[in-house]
Amino acid sequence: MALVVQKYGGSSLESADRIKRVAERIVATKKAGNEVVVVCSAMGDTTDELLDLAEQVNPVPPEREMDMLLTAGERISNALVAMAISAHGAEAWSFTGSQAGVVTTSVHGNARIIDVTPSRVTDALEQGYIALVAGFQGVSQDTKDITTLGRGGSDTTAVALAAALNADVCEIYSDVDGVYTADPRIVPNARKLDTVPYEEMLELAASGSKILHLRSVEYARRYGVPIRVRSSYSDKPGTTVAGSIEELPVEQALITGVAHDRSEAKITVTGVPDHAGAAARIFRTVADAEIDIDMVLQNISNTTGRTDITFTLSKANGPKAVSELEKIKAELDFSAVLYDDHVGKVSLVGAGMRSHPGVTATFCEALAKSGVNIEIINTSEIRISVLIRDAQLDDAVRAIHEAFELGGDEEAVVYAGSGR
Amino acid sequence: MALVVQKYGGSSLESADRIKRVAERIVATKKAGNEVVVVCSAMGDTTDELLDLAEQVNPVPPEREMDMLLTAGERISNALVAMAISAHGAEAWSFTGSQAGVVTTSVHGNARIIDVTPSRVTDALEQGYIALVAGFQGVSQDTKDITTLGRGGSDTTAVALAAALNADVCEIYSDVDGVYTADPRIVPNARKLDTVPYEEMLELAASGSKILHLRSVEYARRYGVPIRVRSSYSDKPGTTVAGSIEELPVEQALITGVAHDRSEAKITVTGVPDHAGAAARIFRTVADAEIDIDMVLQNISNTTGRTDITFTLSKANGPKAVSELEKIKAELDFSAVLYDDHVGKVSLVGAGMRSHPGVTATFCEALAKSGVNIEIINTSEIRISVLIRDAQLDDAVRAIHEAFELGGDEEAVVYAGSGR
Repeated sequence: MALVVQKYGGSSLESADRIKRVAERIVATKKAGNEVVVVCSAMGDTTDELLDLAEQVNPVPPEREMDMLLTAGERISNALVAMAISAHGAEAWSFTGSQAGVVTTSVHGNARIIDVTPSRVTDALEQGYIALVAGFQGVSQDTKDITTLGRGGSDTTAVALAAALNADVCEIYSDVDGVYTADPRIVPNARKLDTVPYEEMLELAASGSKILHLRSVEYARRYGVPIRVRSSYSDKPGTTVAGSIEELPVEQALITGVAHDRSEAKITVTGVPDHAGAAARIFRTVADAEIDIDMVLQNISNTTGRTDITFTLSKANGPKAVSELEKIKAELDFSAVLYDDHVGKVSLVGAGMRSHPGVTATFCEALAKSGVNIEIINTSEIRISVLIRDAQLDDAVRAIHEAFELGGDEEAVVYAGSGR
Repeated sequence: MALVVQKYGGSSLESADRIKRVAERIVATKKAGNEVVVVCSAMGDTTDELLDLAEQVNPVPPEREMDMLLTAGERISNALVAMAISAHGAEAWSFTGSQAGVVTTSVHGNARIIDVTPSRVTDALEQGYIALVAGFQGVSQDTKDITTLGRGGSDTTAVALAAALNADVCEIYSDVDGVYTADPRIVPNARKLDTVPYEEMLELAASGSKILHLRSVEYARRYGVPIRVRSSYSDKPGTTVAGSIEELPVEQALITGVAHDRSEAKITVTGVPDHAGAAARIFRTVADAEIDIDMVLQNISNTTGRTDITFTLSKANGPKAVSELEKIKAELDFSAVLYDDHVGKVSLVGAGMRSHPGVTATFCEALAKSGVNIEIINTSEIRISVLIRDAQLDDAVRAIHEAFELGGDEEAVVYAGSGR
């Protein structure tokens, strides 16, 4: 008998009818002999509706109350799924994050899980019940206030529960049936992957893939929880995210897939006096505004002793970063802050590039042949990312996917001798 | 400085705009120098929408899950009101019933409050916050599950909190501006009452007045909590419900008002063999179905040795009571079970009738003059109720209101010598 944790996202729960379909699947999983714990996000539009109501009564709502408000959404969906399960011949109890023992930091809207002590969930399972746990929420260890977990919170709740319960698998359900070698909407012959090791999934998630959230993959890797990405609209087995690239025999290490990201913007601080500390001051200013930076490029200083410093960040943070940098313009005596939000990032991920030289060359040649200019390049052991014009993103994804033969029936294998 | 508890019902909170108006009133109360605790029901249609969703996924939803579902409604409204308060210049924290220390029995859907230990509310007040508490809910002492309190639950939450906090007053806000001598929609010259003692309010509530729920008035009486019934649409002072009829000087005891009730039906069990135990068997059968009985009439046995037993009950329970009685028809050998849901009840309430003979006579004469036939009569120390045809209810209310001069500027005083 296995212990299965399943997570259903908002679109899988967007109507009474979808809820009943989800309940059928849950009951089938239980009747197959498993113990089942389910984490549900709020129903489709609920969170947006609540945010809208909040904005109508206060354009800058207090964060503690925002968490009290939004968590109603998960309460509703989990109770409804429990009711639907009951109508389908099994019994279920729903629990809030707090009741399920999800203990967090006090940062409203972006709390981190400190610990999960799911004794009420375990009791329910022992009594033969299916346990439903509201995703995206917990209770603050210090203040005992209700908190929400920020982006990807329901995925994180599911993985954290799976870890605490020593579950055999954590199944993440959405409207896609697995992890693909590229976005199938851009690359028609993109292939569904059977398995992806944790480190590659982390890189894909960090590079724009929206299938799984970075935090939940990191949590799964740390605690060794196998994740299965599946569609709630079919019975296909989906993609398993498990194992480490260290466990792969060298010959089997592959190029796994292409990710793309339209959510970033580029800032260039021009004419920065080329002395020690100028760059540090620029990055500290942005960091103090609690803004994360992704790719960085510093031009080689020209004869004027000035340099340009370029970096990328989330578009949402763009305006704030620009205004913070403008404040130190006089102090640092740089020329200007330029802002460009027509950029896109495309990344190739695969453990195979560690042991196969020539991957970078093949990557850049494919882009050049498609007329795509590289503005910034950034690599890790198993990933190459480039910043390009966003209008060229689709072409770039297809070109790279093609160059590494990721589509169709052939697995992409990088042969020795191709040269990195 | 006073401690004021305010309760706002669903219609006072039915939109973002109404919520902002309510927040203004709350902040004004605080700025006048008071400590303020607010209990909010769910927004206008929320509870009905949730019930509808529940029914779509399971026609007979498990009660534990129904409580988890419905309590989301109060969570939403209290968080939104807290946000609106923040936008109006004060600070507020919202709490669930559980967080506010409302401890109840385990009966889902109809839990009773066992205790209220509002330490988090007190802490909030001490720190200068306005505290919002979700009405209609608590946590079960035994199972730690979330429970809802049944009809009038939010009023009861407010009064129970007021008692536990030793509040100076509990203000119940709705869309009516007080307790009237009769329903103003039926009696145009009905007068708003300034004060009503607890016992009279209990009788009015039990006789069909929907302004305050019986349980909350009983709770207020037991703990000496003054209630003020006010409108959330105006600044009028409303009606104070406080004090005992025992404290009224005899000469000041009055006839207070007329209540009516369309929610009852009448059951007559005909041809019941007139022996000891038959009536008991009938009433036990109905009681075992957890159905409450109101008025009772037993015809004097005629020469056949059989009698008719008549009683009233809530229309909602009618069909069930009939079917339970049909089951014992053969055993008791009675003739038939008759069901009549075209009845109405009209009641006169006032402490004055204790010491003034003639009230009953005046009451019956007024009805007779209006052509209203009395089918059952039932009295208490301070109330006379009669069952009549529901089509005659409005005429009856007006006739009695007139006969006791309850309208306009004159107070209804029953003079010594009128004879009861």
